[in-house]
Amino acid sequence: MVKGIGVCPGIALGKVLVLQEEELNVEKEEIEDIELEKERFNKAVLRSKEDLEKIKVQVTEELGEDNAEIFQAHLMILQDPELIDSTLKKIETGINAEYAFNEVVNQTIQVFEAIDDEYLRERAADIKDISKRVLKYLLGKEQSDITSLSEEIILVAEDLTPSDTASMDKKRVKGFLTNIGGRTSHTAIMARTLGIPAVVGLNNITENVKSGDIVAFDGETGEVIINPNDEQKKYYEDKKRIYEENKKELKELVGKESITTDGKVVELVGNIGTPSDVEALIDNDAEGVGLFRTEFLYMNRHELPTEEEQYNAYKTVLEAMKNKPVVIRTLDIGGDKNLDYLKFDYEMNPFLGYRAIRLCLDRRDIFCTQLRALLRASIYGKLRIMFPMISSLEELLEAKEILSQVKEELINEGYEISKDIEIGMMIEVPSAAIISDILAKHVDFFSIGTNDLIQYTTAVDRTNEKISHLYSPFNLGVLRLIKMVIDNAHQEGIWVGMCGEMAGDKTLIPILLGMGLDEFSMSPISILPARRLIRSLSLEESEKISCEKLRNA
Amino acid sequence: MVKGIGVCPGIALGKVLVLQEEELNVEKEEIEDIELEKERFNKAVLRSKEDLEKIKVQVTEELGEDNAEIFQAHLMILQDPELIDSTLKKIETGINAEYAFNEVVNQTIQVFEAIDDEYLRERAADIKDISKRVLKYLLGKEQSDITSLSEEIILVAEDLTPSDTASMDKKRVKGFLTNIGGRTSHTAIMARTLGIPAVVGLNNITENVKSGDIVAFDGETGEVIINPNDEQKKYYEDKKRIYEENKKELKELVGKESITTDGKVVELVGNIGTPSDVEALIDNDAEGVGLFRTEFLYMNRHELPTEEEQYNAYKTVLEAMKNKPVVIRTLDIGGDKNLDYLKFDYEMNPFLGYRAIRLCLDRRDIFCTQLRALLRASIYGKLRIMFPMISSLEELLEAKEILSQVKEELINEGYEISKDIEIGMMIEVPSAAIISDILAKHVDFFSIGTNDLIQYTTAVDRTNEKISHLYSPFNLGVLRLIKMVIDNAHQEGIWVGMCGEMAGDKTLIPILLGMGLDEFSMSPISILPARRLIRSLSLEESEKISCEKLRNA
Repeated sequence: MVKGIGVCPGIALGKVLVLQEEELNVEKEEIEDIELEKERFNKAVLRSKEDLEKIKVQVTEELGEDNAEIFQAHLMILQDPELIDSTLKKIETGINAEYAFNEVVNQTIQVFEAIDDEYLRERAADIKDISKRVLKYLLGKEQSDITSLSEEIILVAEDLTPSDTASMDKKRVKGFLTNIGGRTSHTAIMARTLGIPAVVGLNNITENVKSGDIVAFDGETGEVIINPNDEQKKYYEDKKRIYEENKKELKELVGKESITTDGKVVELVGNIGTPSDVEALIDNDAEGVGLFRTEFLYMNRHELPTEEEQYNAYKTVLEAMKNKPVVIRTLDIGGDKNLDYLKFDYEMNPFLGYRAIRLCLDRRDIFCTQLRALLRASIYGKLRIMFPMISSLEELLEAKEILSQVKEELINEGYEISKDIEIGMMIEVPSAAIISDILAKHVDFFSIGTNDLIQYTTAVDRTNEKISHLYSPFNLGVLRLIKMVIDNAHQEGIWVGMCGEMAGDKTLIPILLGMGLDEFSMSPISILPARRLIRSLSLEESEKISCEKLRNA
Repeated sequence: MVKGIGVCPGIALGKVLVLQEEELNVEKEEIEDIELEKERFNKAVLRSKEDLEKIKVQVTEELGEDNAEIFQAHLMILQDPELIDSTLKKIETGINAEYAFNEVVNQTIQVFEAIDDEYLRERAADIKDISKRVLKYLLGKEQSDITSLSEEIILVAEDLTPSDTASMDKKRVKGFLTNIGGRTSHTAIMARTLGIPAVVGLNNITENVKSGDIVAFDGETGEVIINPNDEQKKYYEDKKRIYEENKKELKELVGKESITTDGKVVELVGNIGTPSDVEALIDNDAEGVGLFRTEFLYMNRHELPTEEEQYNAYKTVLEAMKNKPVVIRTLDIGGDKNLDYLKFDYEMNPFLGYRAIRLCLDRRDIFCTQLRALLRASIYGKLRIMFPMISSLEELLEAKEILSQVKEELINEGYEISKDIEIGMMIEVPSAAIISDILAKHVDFFSIGTNDLIQYTTAVDRTNEKISHLYSPFNLGVLRLIKMVIDNAHQEGIWVGMCGEMAGDKTLIPILLGMGLDEFSMSPISILPARRLIRSLSLEESEKISCEKLRNA
């Protein structure tokens, strides 16, 4: 048995197909005919583009436009002067195209990987994917082909590229197992989109199995059995049947209320990172968006997004969610999340640094552009604007003042703005939680960001493995702060949500429910299980559980 | 008017003597007679040692043994094989001694300066000082000489080295002004020891004045007036007179109680970093040690300190303080404070990382050695042991359990241990403050570490200049946490101290007093002014002030 990161729940049992990574040996050579070499490079790029265009059309037909977007992004990367012109310049110094291109690509990847942001690190994989295609053409190798399979298989690979998943025979692939990757890797995202069980981060699964082996695995726990015996096979077949039944049962909860047995109704909403994530929310019957992270608009680009680009993104989500509430968080960049066009000074402790609202109050230009876009989009749905990282009343009042100014400005310019936008703030800094009685007088809602709140309250960087035993949502200090925030909010008649990992955690939902939490925001896939759980609980019983937890001495 | 960091209060007005930094141009040369070159180097080292021995004797006579320690340290550096053998090895490759030595020294300095610890960075200055002496001998330059001055002067320099301050004509030097340095730089420490007003970190004072100019400055505010006019001179003369009177007045408070007008007695104690700091505490009539940082024992060396070394240091302090209480904090290393013989993994956010009690509970060997030394020393005074960075009850209980085991072990070995050691913990992590009602049941005292508590509560790295406006002891969340801790402690009948910067701050003392703080631990120089302030306040009035601050909405 080996264990990796389960990224798409489901049980798979079947025959392995190992997708071999072809070695691409790029060696430096001096060339004489520079023009010929440049032409050779341009041709490889052109053929790669043709491939990508073809894949794009195919994916659009099979999976819809949203999923084809990545290939549009790939096509744009292939037009990026930083990549293409830099390579041509290198070729002009008398170096062969393969080597020149490989150098430029590796430099770019290094920059991406150095940035401590999971999303950006994973995007480095996109560049690798594209470069592999171009290099294969330059080196005269064949492009890998899994477009038509003769039997049902479980695909095993170092990692799956967008081209792999796009061109593969989707009906016959019953699972993914990869050596590398995390929750937001392309493999993980595609697995969830296609509903194919998947485990990533298995380190060396490509060495531990060969094509033709049988594997059984659980895409939720990440457990993988290689060549299971009959007993194990039987176990996984049963597990699979139960899983399917469970899935059907969950589907029956679509359209039902999220209500306890004694009648307390809560809101189950979802966290999203891009407009295309809305689809999964709708599929899982989310009652709204509890956290729309707007950072994606600022990433993978060379300059700040325009007001228009942002407006379109916000409008898309608001329209797609019909009249369900959409909480959009203003920019939470800086600190550990850097952008190449916004260079920040080195910070010794970025988590305790210049980020989120701190940056926005300092860089009014960035903040106002986003607020303009948000307010203009407000008429297309039920907008809730949320400020991150507020640590004092002064910051909140300043942010609200800027929002008012922007609003007035837009009205003077003749724009229509919704009259019932709710204004809220994240509670993720301990000082904000402690003065939540005061802050509650100035907002329409709180949303507790537990990832950061735990981190600051316990002084534990959640990414630091050496002290990970101290990072716990059950820390009594953290639980008490959450209770304090909920009580203070209710005292002032405002509602409280939660958009950190805790909100979707089965073991924590009863406690949070008992504390009085009004809104739970989680990943789409957790929504229906959470609804089922809540419908099985009574508020009275939950209150007892949470009282017990809070007393804990 | 220019402004620097005032590091020793007092007013100075007088003529400038600029201590010129001689340019030491070290150039690389190839040499032929390697043996001769090595001898030349050994001779320069020898002559430097003779100088240092002489200075050491002189300083011992004039300022006592404690102040001469630094020259003993310098002598040891001159015997350090890393410095000497590495230089000789370089010479053997055919390079001249100056260049070889300079290279080795610069590398060492770089290592020291790269470590983010103010104390260690300042120690790099020691190595510079020594190397300058050796290089001057190698280059045939004269050693600077301010051993006898014909008139009273204010010494202006890039920075003052231990040799400068040791050999200077102390009676005639009335002030220090330097370009570089911070609160713990050698210049600052010597200024305070000698009671000479000083301002450091002036950037380019050596360029802005020349020998013979007149300057007037305030060693508390850091304000320096170059060539003051008559009015300004008059102002500074008055200020000086008032300062001297004030000083006299403070001296009269020695031996008096720290008591409010309505009879509330508090404890005014001091923060120290080494046993030699005790002298300043006694001079300023501290009522005990509120924080003895034990990190110095682990620094500037190549291996962990032995139990014996630690025992001697603790015993020295306990004995020197007679029967006054001494709070000794167990090791607070790790995170930003690294040691070269204890390599830690890179951490993205060291302030939220593996440090203090987290490290000690993980590295029992280090922790137990320190606890053994502490317990053995306990019979020489009134020991209070304090654990830093506790964030949960579990950690506290674990630390206490280890302490019990060590105690039993020592008793079995036949050691005598004091029966009334108080056991306490720092409150510097928000989660600890929030569960202080529970923690209070398991300790004899709390000491609030405000530097860290503010930092974590507001999620602001206090060393990050970009967000320094958010780092405030007046943050309402912070003030409320402090009040909560004090109330919880008193509820359980234990006392609460404070050992962060806040405790010695004139504007905060009334608020803290009003909140019920029992013990204030500060730098020695702040103790008598704090006593005067407290003796002028009534507890009743202070309670009103702090209630006002806590309501603030």
